[in-house]
Amino acid sequence: MVTPPSGGNLDLQNEMLPLGEYIFLRVLQANPNMKTILGIPGDFNLNLMEHMYASSVALKARFVGLCNELNAAYTACGYARRMSAMSVLITTYGVGELSALNGIAGAFAEYSPVLHIVGTTRIVQKQAAESITDPLQVWNIHHLVQNKNPLKSSDHQVYEKLVEPFSVAQESLIWDGEENASGVNLDKIDRVLVKIIQESRPGYLFIPADIPDTKVPKSRLSVPLDVAELKDEISKNTLQSLVSRILNKLCLAREPSVLVDALVSRFGYAQELSSFILTLPAYYVKLFSTNCGRFSDETLVNFVGTYAGGMSPTKEIKTLLEDETDFLLHLGKFNVEVNYKSDFSRIRDVVVVHPDYIYIDGEYIYTKDFTTDSRIFSIGDFLKELTTQTDVLGFIHHAPHVGNINYKYNPKLFHDPKTLKVNGVVTQKYLVDFFNSYLQPNDVLVCDTCTFQFALADLKIPKGVQFVSQSFFGSIGYALPATLGVSLAEKDLGAKRRVILVEGDGSAQMTVQEWSSYLRNDIQPPKIFLLNNSGYTVERLIEGPTRSYNDIQSTWQWTEILKIFGDAECKKHTSAKLSTIKEFDDYFIKQNHMNSPNDKIEFLELVLGKLDAPERFEAMVNFRTLC
Amino acid sequence: MVTPPSGGNLDLQNEMLPLGEYIFLRVLQANPNMKTILGIPGDFNLNLMEHMYASSVALKARFVGLCNELNAAYTACGYARRMSAMSVLITTYGVGELSALNGIAGAFAEYSPVLHIVGTTRIVQKQAAESITDPLQVWNIHHLVQNKNPLKSSDHQVYEKLVEPFSVAQESLIWDGEENASGVNLDKIDRVLVKIIQESRPGYLFIPADIPDTKVPKSRLSVPLDVAELKDEISKNTLQSLVSRILNKLCLAREPSVLVDALVSRFGYAQELSSFILTLPAYYVKLFSTNCGRFSDETLVNFVGTYAGGMSPTKEIKTLLEDETDFLLHLGKFNVEVNYKSDFSRIRDVVVVHPDYIYIDGEYIYTKDFTTDSRIFSIGDFLKELTTQTDVLGFIHHAPHVGNINYKYNPKLFHDPKTLKVNGVVTQKYLVDFFNSYLQPNDVLVCDTCTFQFALADLKIPKGVQFVSQSFFGSIGYALPATLGVSLAEKDLGAKRRVILVEGDGSAQMTVQEWSSYLRNDIQPPKIFLLNNSGYTVERLIEGPTRSYNDIQSTWQWTEILKIFGDAECKKHTSAKLSTIKEFDDYFIKQNHMNSPNDKIEFLELVLGKLDAPERFEAMVNFRTLC
Repeated sequence: MVTPPSGGNLDLQNEMLPLGEYIFLRVLQANPNMKTILGIPGDFNLNLMEHMYASSVALKARFVGLCNELNAAYTACGYARRMSAMSVLITTYGVGELSALNGIAGAFAEYSPVLHIVGTTRIVQKQAAESITDPLQVWNIHHLVQNKNPLKSSDHQVYEKLVEPFSVAQESLIWDGEENASGVNLDKIDRVLVKIIQESRPGYLFIPADIPDTKVPKSRLSVPLDVAELKDEISKNTLQSLVSRILNKLCLAREPSVLVDALVSRFGYAQELSSFILTLPAYYVKLFSTNCGRFSDETLVNFVGTYAGGMSPTKEIKTLLEDETDFLLHLGKFNVEVNYKSDFSRIRDVVVVHPDYIYIDGEYIYTKDFTTDSRIFSIGDFLKELTTQTDVLGFIHHAPHVGNINYKYNPKLFHDPKTLKVNGVVTQKYLVDFFNSYLQPNDVLVCDTCTFQFALADLKIPKGVQFVSQSFFGSIGYALPATLGVSLAEKDLGAKRRVILVEGDGSAQMTVQEWSSYLRNDIQPPKIFLLNNSGYTVERLIEGPTRSYNDIQSTWQWTEILKIFGDAECKKHTSAKLSTIKEFDDYFIKQNHMNSPNDKIEFLELVLGKLDAPERFEAMVNFRTLC
Repeated sequence: MVTPPSGGNLDLQNEMLPLGEYIFLRVLQANPNMKTILGIPGDFNLNLMEHMYASSVALKARFVGLCNELNAAYTACGYARRMSAMSVLITTYGVGELSALNGIAGAFAEYSPVLHIVGTTRIVQKQAAESITDPLQVWNIHHLVQNKNPLKSSDHQVYEKLVEPFSVAQESLIWDGEENASGVNLDKIDRVLVKIIQESRPGYLFIPADIPDTKVPKSRLSVPLDVAELKDEISKNTLQSLVSRILNKLCLAREPSVLVDALVSRFGYAQELSSFILTLPAYYVKLFSTNCGRFSDETLVNFVGTYAGGMSPTKEIKTLLEDETDFLLHLGKFNVEVNYKSDFSRIRDVVVVHPDYIYIDGEYIYTKDFTTDSRIFSIGDFLKELTTQTDVLGFIHHAPHVGNINYKYNPKLFHDPKTLKVNGVVTQKYLVDFFNSYLQPNDVLVCDTCTFQFALADLKIPKGVQFVSQSFFGSIGYALPATLGVSLAEKDLGAKRRVILVEGDGSAQMTVQEWSSYLRNDIQPPKIFLLNNSGYTVERLIEGPTRSYNDIQSTWQWTEILKIFGDAECKKHTSAKLSTIKEFDDYFIKQNHMNSPNDKIEFLELVLGKLDAPERFEAMVNFRTLC
C-alpha cells in the first residue's frame, strides 16, 4: 500500500488561496515588471479589490485609483505602451466598464496589451435571473439595463457581449463544478493573459462579485504561463524557409530598403528589430520609419526619414523609397490612415511582414490560424531568425556599393527653419524647431491627437526616444491620462527617462482631472506642454474655422490647475505661461530649463494662435486624406 | 391637358433644403421647447454641424459644446428629464459615440428620451470597404477599429451594432436610391423620433459624413410627427374596458391605496397623474410614492409617504400600505432595486399599470405589441381615461369613511430631528433636516449617486419639487453634467425654478470639467452642495472603510475651481466652505442665504466625515440589498 508523502511538501501542495489573490498573483506573473494595479472601485468589484491587500500581492504591487474609468483605461494603455507589457485595469459592472470602453477600443486599435477586469453581478444573481418564470419576481439590479420586455429578466451578460470587437479574449469566471476550489476553471485566466500578450491587445476577465473568496490551489501558480508561439519543428521549418527566401531577395537586391512600421515595437520587439538592423550593412540598406512606427534609432547613418507616401516630410524621402528601391522589406505593417497610402508600384519586389501574415512573391502566407486563433510564430521569432541568418550569411560578398559607408542621408525637414522669425509669438512651426533641440536620447514623448501630432514626422529624434500617441484611433484627451500611465511605469521600471506630454487645450479639458493623480502618486514627474489655442484647432482647419462648435471655454487659468488639485505651494510642480519667442528663450535658455531636473512636474502653457498649425498639418488638410 | 399650377406655390412645393438642416428642423419639431443642441465636434460630424447655422435652425436653437462626450450624454439626459421631452446629442464616429455610451445606457435605464446623432464614415468609404477584395487595398480609417483579420476591411457598422440594448430605435441614413433628394428615406428619421417619444428612451441616428448636404423636399416638414398611440376603436374599447374594471375595484374597496411610481413622470405624464389624483376623494384613498417615483405634490392630505418595502422611512408607511390596504393601484411600476422589494402578499387585490402592460386579476395584459414594437395606448392615455371615468362616476356614494377629510398622514421621519446636536460638525443627518427647511415649492433637486441620495426618502418635499437622479442605473458623476442640462432646460423653458445640485466629491471628480460649462453658457445658475467626505463613502460603508481604493485625491481646493475655470473675479458665482453647524447657521440664517437670488451660481463645499452617512443608508447596508 502506497502512503502519500507526509509533512511540509504535502501541505504546500494542498495549500489553497482565495481566487482573488490568485488572480492578482497570476497577473503579476504575466508582467513581472508590473507594480501598479489601476482601477476604480464599485460595489461589484470590492470583493475582488480586497485581495490586493493580501501581503503576497501588496508586497509586489500598489493600487492606483483614477478619477474616472475612461481616464483609467487611457492610463492603463499608457502604462502598457511604456512597458511594452501588459497592464491591468479594474472597473465595475455596467457603469464602469462602459465608461472605459472607448479607452479599450483605442488600446485594441493601437495594439496595447491591457487586461480589463470587470466585477460583475453575483453568480447567484445571474442564476436567479435565468430561473425566473413569474414576472412578479423580476427585479432589476442597479447598473444593469432592463430587458426591453419588462416582464422578463434582464440579460446579465449584456455588457460582456459588447466587447468582442475590441478585445482578443474574454472569459467570465463561474463555479464550473461545485462551489469549491476545483469548480473554478483557472485555465480561463491563463487563456486571457496569454492571448493579451501574444496579440498585444486588450482582453477581458469578468469576475462575479461572489467568486473572489473561493479557494483555489496555490500550486497552480507554479505552472508557467505558456506564451511561446513557435512550438513545433514544422513551424520552425516554415519560419526558417521564409526567412531564407526573404534574405535571398535582400542579398540579391541592388537598392534594398527596410521600412520599419508600428507593429514591431507595439508587440514589444523593438530590441529584436534593432539587433536585425545593426546586422545589416549600413552602406547599402536604406532605412525608413512610418508616422506610427518611428524607429528607436533614427541617428543611424542609413536612416533616411519618415515615409508617408505623398505626405512624406520631403520629396527626397518619397523618391528614395518609391523610385530608388528595388527590394523593400516592410516590417510590422500598420495599414492605417495616418501612415498615409504608400505607392510601392514601381518597386520591383516587396515583402511585407505583419504579425499575422507574410506577403511574399504576390502571395499572402498567414502566420496566424484564424480558425484555431493561434500563431505559428511571432514577429519576434521572425526577427530573431532573420538576425541569426543575416549574421551567418554576412553581406560583404554581395554588397554592390562597398565604400559608401560614410554616406549619411539628411533630407531637409518639411519646413525650412531659416524662414522662422526669432521674435514675435510662438508658432507651431517654431515648436518643431524647438523640439528638435529639446528632445534628448531616451525621452518618452506622449502627444495627443492635436495639431502638433502632425509635426512629429518633422522631428529628427535622438536615439531611444519613445513616442506614445493614438495617431490612428485618435481619441482626444488620451494623452493626459496616458502620460500618467507612462510616468507610473517609468517609476515601476526604476528608469529615469524624461516623460514629455504635448497636449491641446481642447483635448486637456476632456480628461483634466487626471492631473490630480499626477500629484497623488509617486511617478516620474513629466514635462507638460499645454498648447492653448482656444479650441479645436485640428477641426477649425478642416471645417468651420470660426464656428462656435469649435470653441471651448477658453478662460481657464491653466497654470493654476495643479495648485487647486492639491499643490498650492508648488512643492511638486512648477508652472509658466509662454506666449512669445522671447519668453521661450528667457525660460529655456536664460533660465536654463532645456534640461530641468526631473524632481518636479514642469507645467508650461504655450499660448498659440487659433488657426496656427504645423506646415505638415496644413498640407495634410489640402491633401484631403481626412474625412 | 392639365397644366401644373404656376408661381410661388409650386416653388414652395418643390423647395429643397439640405438634409442636415432638415434633420435639425425635424428634431426641433419633436420637442418644440428645445432651444439647445448638445454635442462635441469631430471630423465625421462637422458637415452635419454646419447646418445648425442655417438661419431657420439658428433662430430656434443654439449649439452648446461640452468638455467630453460622457458629460455631454449626462447633460442631454438632464435636459430631457427637466423638460420631460426629447433632447439631442451629437457626437462623432467611434471615439465620441463610445465615450457617450455609458450616459446613453443610463438614459435607457432611467427612461430619459435622448436622441443621439452620430456622424459616421462617409457612404463612399463604407461602400469602398465592402467592395475590397485585394488585401493590399485594405486601409484603415481613423476612429474605426480594425478587422481582426488584417487582410479584410473593417466593419463600418461595428459601433452601430452595440447600441441595440440601450436604445429603442436605430437608423443609419444612406442614399437609398440615387444620390439625390428622393434617395434619402426621411421616414427613418421620423421612426426614430417617434419611438424616442413613445418609449421615453434613447434612439440613434447615424449620419454618414457625406450625406448632410443632400437636398430633400422642404414640404416633408409639414407632415406632422405622428406620436399618438391610441389610434383605433378597438384600442379605445380595450382601454375603456380596462379602466372600467380597475375603477370598479377602486370603488368597491374599503381601504384603497395608490402607489405612484417613476414610469408616470418619466413618460411626461406628471400632469395627467395629478389630475387623476385630485379627482379621487382624499378622505379614503391613501397615496404613496416610491424612491424613484416621488409624487409632485406630497403635501396632499392623503399622501402617506415614500414606500420602499422593508426600507420604508417608517414602519407606519409600510403597515399602511401592506396591511391596511385592500386594493392597491400601482401606477408606473419601476421594478428596480432602489425601490426595494415590495411585499403585497397581504393585499387582497393589486392592479399594476406599466407603460407596456397592465396586471389585473392575476393576468398580464400587454398594452405593447413586442412583435410590431407598437403600443395600443400610452400610460398617459390610460390616466386621462381613468380621470374622465372617475370624474363621471364620483366617489361620494361609495365612500365608507365620509367625514375623515381632515385627516392628514404624518408619519415620523426616519430619524428623529430632536436627537440632533445644534452645534459641532455638519453631518448628513443634519443635512436631512436642513433640506427639509431649505427646499421650496418647484425646486429641481439633482442628486448624484452619493450617500445623500439615500436620504431623499426622508425629505418631506414641498409641492412641485422635481427630483433628477440616476437612482437605479447609479453611474457616479452623472449629476454634475445633468444639472447643466437641467439649468439649460430651465432657461430654454423661460422658467425660474431653483436648480439644486447635491454631489459627493468622488462623483464630482469624475466629471468636474463640466462646471466650466456652467460659466460658459446662459443657464439658470444652480445652487451646488459639494459633499466633501474624502472619497467614496458609499463604498466605504459597504466594504473597505479604510482601504486605499476608496480614497481619492482629497486635497482639492473645491471653492477655487470655478475661479480657475474662468470666473476669477466671482462675477458669475459665489462660494463658501462650511464645516460646522455654526458656519451653516451663519451662512444660511444670519447671512440670509436660505433663498439667495438666482443671479449667480452658489457653490458650497460641505466638509463631512469620511464615514458619515444618512441613517437610512446605514440601515440599507445592514439590509444587504446591495451586492
